[in-house]
Amino acid sequence: MAVCGVGLIGGSLAMVARREGLVGEVVGLGRTQSNLAVALERGIVDRATRDPAEAARGADLVVLAVPVRTIPATFAAMVAHLPQAATVTDVGSVKEQIVRELEARLGPKMALVAAHPLSGKETVGAAAADPELFRGRRVIITPSARSTAEAIARIEALWRATGASVERMAPRTHDEILARASHLPQIVASALAVALAEERVDGKLAAEFGAGGLSDTTRVAASSPEMWRDICLANRDAILSALRVYRDSLEEFVALIERADAAGLEALFERGRKMRERIR
Amino acid sequence: MAVCGVGLIGGSLAMVARREGLVGEVVGLGRTQSNLAVALERGIVDRATRDPAEAARGADLVVLAVPVRTIPATFAAMVAHLPQAATVTDVGSVKEQIVRELEARLGPKMALVAAHPLSGKETVGAAAADPELFRGRRVIITPSARSTAEAIARIEALWRATGASVERMAPRTHDEILARASHLPQIVASALAVALAEERVDGKLAAEFGAGGLSDTTRVAASSPEMWRDICLANRDAILSALRVYRDSLEEFVALIERADAAGLEALFERGRKMRERIR
Repeated sequence: MAVCGVGLIGGSLAMVARREGLVGEVVGLGRTQSNLAVALERGIVDRATRDPAEAARGADLVVLAVPVRTIPATFAAMVAHLPQAATVTDVGSVKEQIVRELEARLGPKMALVAAHPLSGKETVGAAAADPELFRGRRVIITPSARSTAEAIARIEALWRATGASVERMAPRTHDEILARASHLPQIVASALAVALAEERVDGKLAAEFGAGGLSDTTRVAASSPEMWRDICLANRDAILSALRVYRDSLEEFVALIERADAAGLEALFERGRKMRERIR
Repeated sequence: MAVCGVGLIGGSLAMVARREGLVGEVVGLGRTQSNLAVALERGIVDRATRDPAEAARGADLVVLAVPVRTIPATFAAMVAHLPQAATVTDVGSVKEQIVRELEARLGPKMALVAAHPLSGKETVGAAAADPELFRGRRVIITPSARSTAEAIARIEALWRATGASVERMAPRTHDEILARASHLPQIVASALAVALAEERVDGKLAAEFGAGGLSDTTRVAASSPEMWRDICLANRDAILSALRVYRDSLEEFVALIERADAAGLEALFERGRKMRERIR
């Protein structure tokens, strides 16, 4: 197994694969020697390299766990050196574009089974890898034209071994769902943080007077700007459509406040409250 | 001391006042016998009543800790029975309207020093009261035309005894700041919960696929619809102006995503990230 990107996700998955005896040798591909050293030291990988060709040789399973934007290029640098019948998977948080780009680069006998574990931790690097990271979480598998039944079974078995629940859906369905459940909350939170960045009243920074509500609502705004830039670009249409739904509901609040509509406001806050209780 | 509304805030403040020997007898005014029974049992109050006149008699300090909307009526039902020189305070989360309405009802020798502790707990009732609730938090005191220096000193001493840091500002300044730091995040979170309430993709409820990001960003949407209806009505103009700033920053995201502007998106997410780190 070649793990490309031995960070939180790739590292954690490699630990499970080894623990469960699902793979032989594990080779880690990375960019920084220091992170690879941690991966070796923690026994996450057997071998570590910064050379895609070296990582590819003999790997019948490739896990692409690098940032979304670099997945196609990382795979392109490996493909010529992989065994003919290698199985390829990834852990990217958008799927339609990645599936399209990987399928275009796949060798004729290779299989692709893209995947996305929904685990929301903010720590990074091999030092944070944890074989229990995925337990009780969801993992979405998005079979596509180049997924064989055998490859799907292998990737699903790998993810089931982590203790996650595995669900299949089309890449497009995944992207539409995640645009709403993950990408939209990120933009909503970041827009709130941006809005308050310079808001002062009588010289006081308003945000300094926020309690738990502001802190919770903006928490994800601390996430990586590069990662979210890439997700916004890779899942543009679905995100714009989710944003339209959100702006409509925001404008409903604005209109009710403008009209001082007490009953309407209570009913709308109540709809939000009921929804929140369902996702607890 | 008469504590009107022996809930989380009123009950916690009464516990501190007694512990520190800042008051003599504590009388609790409430609507439900069961909550008053808890307050008596926990020693939060010496006496409990559902009669505003009875609570008022002999109380030289009145703490109005009932919901914002009922503060003026609660005080109106007490004022004729209060000692002539009583000091009145409240804990409401909007200040300009409450100050105006209470000042209009104040006896000629009474003093008003409105206050707002920024403590964001979601539990309610006397059972949740805790003398340590305010430690390390901020309390805003909003002196107004009817605040005497003596009354300000008394209310500030009471709040300092809780372990909170006490800050003075004008009622209007308070409302403008809280519209941004507290009321805006609430509406942003509730609008997100409302937007996702019925969003299905291929029959699947999108929100069920949310991880920590959705959960954090919508957390406060679980708060009381009645309370937030009242706050929106009582602080309407400041909230509408905060919403304008937020919608501008949301539209900035929308425009950059529409244009697929990678550099612009990264810079905007980065502005949000920097802001978030400041409020940690």
